[in-house]
Amino acid sequence: MKHVAITISLIFLCLIAGALRSIGQTAIFPKGSKAPASNFTGTVWFAPLVSNDSTFNCTIGTVTFEPGSRSNWHRHPSGQILLITDGTGYTQERGRPIRVIRKGDVVKCSPNVEHWHGASKENAMTHIAVNPNTEKGLVEWLQPVTDNEYKAAYNQSKQ
Amino acid sequence: MKHVAITISLIFLCLIAGALRSIGQTAIFPKGSKAPASNFTGTVWFAPLVSNDSTFNCTIGTVTFEPGSRSNWHRHPSGQILLITDGTGYTQERGRPIRVIRKGDVVKCSPNVEHWHGASKENAMTHIAVNPNTEKGLVEWLQPVTDNEYKAAYNQSKQ
Repeated sequence: MKHVAITISLIFLCLIAGALRSIGQTAIFPKGSKAPASNFTGTVWFAPLVSNDSTFNCTIGTVTFEPGSRSNWHRHPSGQILLITDGTGYTQERGRPIRVIRKGDVVKCSPNVEHWHGASKENAMTHIAVNPNTEKGLVEWLQPVTDNEYKAAYNQSKQ
Repeated sequence: MKHVAITISLIFLCLIAGALRSIGQTAIFPKGSKAPASNFTGTVWFAPLVSNDSTFNCTIGTVTFEPGSRSNWHRHPSGQILLITDGTGYTQERGRPIRVIRKGDVVKCSPNVEHWHGASKENAMTHIAVNPNTEKGLVEWLQPVTDNEYKAAYNQSKQ
């Protein structure tokens, strides 16, 4: 009985240590505040990391999409670079097949190309968004990605 | 004896699972190749994430400094933004006190200000480096940070 108790205690200690380690390692930046429902579907978090100024002409933020959530369709006048730091998601340019994006991927969103990005259906996705050349403008928000459009993206991801 | 064997096996399984989890979680981007000894002291790794082009005018890379390693003194004609993604390090502008930088910190290196950055003495440090406005130039490399300069930084970090 003594050995069983020790074994169970050790398993719990390992689980707690693993959980603490996991919390410490995944959170590079704070999740921030909820992104506005007018531009996003589902629960999305945004934390600004670098605000705009006339020296760098560059803003940077981190965006966390909970499973199933996504941005509206939108365009960046000067383009945007996404660095996927966690999870799995989708991105799609208007009229083109979706691309599954995963931790470690880098995406260049070309200037003025209509597109959206978000989490996969099953997993959250976090990316750093870099907006260079902000003197040309940041973003033009368009209509939401409908449930049917998102479902089509999900189905494509499974092919 | 049977219980002891089970206990030891479970401890090993937990350790292996923890190690695998740790590897999976810390490595967002590959470490890349060794950075040139002409511009760095100690072992430093560099992986390019975004190469330069005339649309984005922005390069991005990830740099991993092993404990004690650092860049040479240098200047960026258009500035540089550092996003610290892991560990602890130092950065210093010429003639100013050092700043200790940690996972989650963001540093703006102003254009043409002479400075260096690197790992702390005890810990490695990884950062993403964003170079916007590359049409103005990327970097001008200067002399190495001497052992005495680095030691002074270490001593300051302990005050």
